Amino acid sequence: MDRLEIEKWKQKVEDELGVEIKEKERFPLQEEIPAQEEKLVGFLAQCIDHTLLRAYATREEIEKLCQEAKEWNFRGVIVNPFYVSLCHRLLEGANPIVEVVVGFPLGQSKPEVKAREAREAFQDGAKEADMVINIGALKDSEWRLVYEDILGVVEEMFPGLVKVILENCYLTEEEKVVGCLISQAAGAQFVKTSTGFGIGGATGEDVKLMRQVVGGSMGIKAAGGIRSREDVLRMIQAGANRIGTSSGVSIVSGN
Amino acid sequence: MDRLEIEKWKQKVEDELGVEIKEKERFPLQEEIPAQEEKLVGFLAQCIDHTLLRAYATREEIEKLCQEAKEWNFRGVIVNPFYVSLCHRLLEGANPIVEVVVGFPLGQSKPEVKAREAREAFQDGAKEADMVINIGALKDSEWRLVYEDILGVVEEMFPGLVKVILENCYLTEEEKVVGCLISQAAGAQFVKTSTGFGIGGATGEDVKLMRQVVGGSMGIKAAGGIRSREDVLRMIQAGANRIGTSSGVSIVSGN
Repeated sequence: MDRLEIEKWKQKVEDELGVEIKEKERFPLQEEIPAQEEKLVGFLAQCIDHTLLRAYATREEIEKLCQEAKEWNFRGVIVNPFYVSLCHRLLEGANPIVEVVVGFPLGQSKPEVKAREAREAFQDGAKEADMVINIGALKDSEWRLVYEDILGVVEEMFPGLVKVILENCYLTEEEKVVGCLISQAAGAQFVKTSTGFGIGGATGEDVKLMRQVVGGSMGIKAAGGIRSREDVLRMIQAGANRIGTSSGVSIVSGN
Repeated sequence: MDRLEIEKWKQKVEDELGVEIKEKERFPLQEEIPAQEEKLVGFLAQCIDHTLLRAYATREEIEKLCQEAKEWNFRGVIVNPFYVSLCHRLLEGANPIVEVVVGFPLGQSKPEVKAREAREAFQDGAKEADMVINIGALKDSEWRLVYEDILGVVEEMFPGLVKVILENCYLTEEEKVVGCLISQAAGAQFVKTSTGFGIGGATGEDVKLMRQVVGGSMGIKAAGGIRSREDVLRMIQAGANRIGTSSGVSIVSGN
């Protein structure tokens, strides 16, 4: 989609919501990737949200996740709401932060429930929340509902960050663009490609499109199907600032 | 698993929770299946929860779901929380009831959030809730947590019914048995085989095992991968009282 058309959509969203979408230079358009291996490993680890979202994850697996996050100095761990307080205890005094998913993975909870879920997670120690956008409402052009759904989570998480998962595999190009713009209008800090539970994951094309829309105002998280160091580098080169993967250890260790 | 071993697990659960698991004859051990086609169609329709839980379901698809539910006189429609109030309006004065999923499909929300989700859905008009059990806690033998998680939803839904989804594909035989017993102890009315989002769906074997455990005290809902009339009949013959499927129309119409 060209710049002019994106501007047109931006104007439409601003008019519909009565909100000005402000541009801020908060995130680099493209991360600088170090060439030297040791520095590269450190850089990659700081991009990676070490992920365990399986329905049947046990305490032992969560403990392993947090142990690995400390050992490799990942940016954070991301888990289901039930495990946030456990991770918070396990990572006390360590670098990696605790992140949570909200309304995950279908996004079709009510706004009130997403907000409540975010509040509980924040109180339990989550510093960032990856929420799923209301996909049905987005497809039905119910922009105000989509906006308020995000706003409710943004307010509960403050000063923590919110990433809005668009679940691109189910969206048209226009819906992806509008999803980014509404997320930006609602004050979320990141847009994210995928849940990893849909029929498709992150693509370089989608990351480029999202970057085109949000510029440096938001970060972009690529997730879903990212399993190798090559996958990660491809996403970062396309414009991603953050990577969600459950293959973090093999990606950084090279094994 | 033989009767004696089930009794042993029942005793363990009762001791651990300090709750007596009472037997009541509320549900037939096996439904009587009519032979004549017209009666069979009516019978099947009354077993079927007409299901639409896709992340990207739109208003138009929900309207179609409700229209079909009225036309074929299905037991109810089951949708994500966001669409409960719409379905309630669409089905006003009609036979089919509105049912909702809670903590779906991963089951790893906090008990407080599942309860809140149930309360919202009940207020929006849901008469039954299909909640996902806390699979991780069940696997970790945190029985009290599993129990209270269910209890919170049962209390919010009263006098509506609660079905507890065990997501059998991730459970051992013992976990399936204990999952049924804890659900019964917590006052849920149904146990259900699967979300339809896991790596496996309903099996006749699982339905038989669940029936062995709960006898006539609870209903059994089979869901996940049920697409034909033969599938439905097989599940009912195994002991299911309710069927969750998105193929309801072709199952009853025979097309």
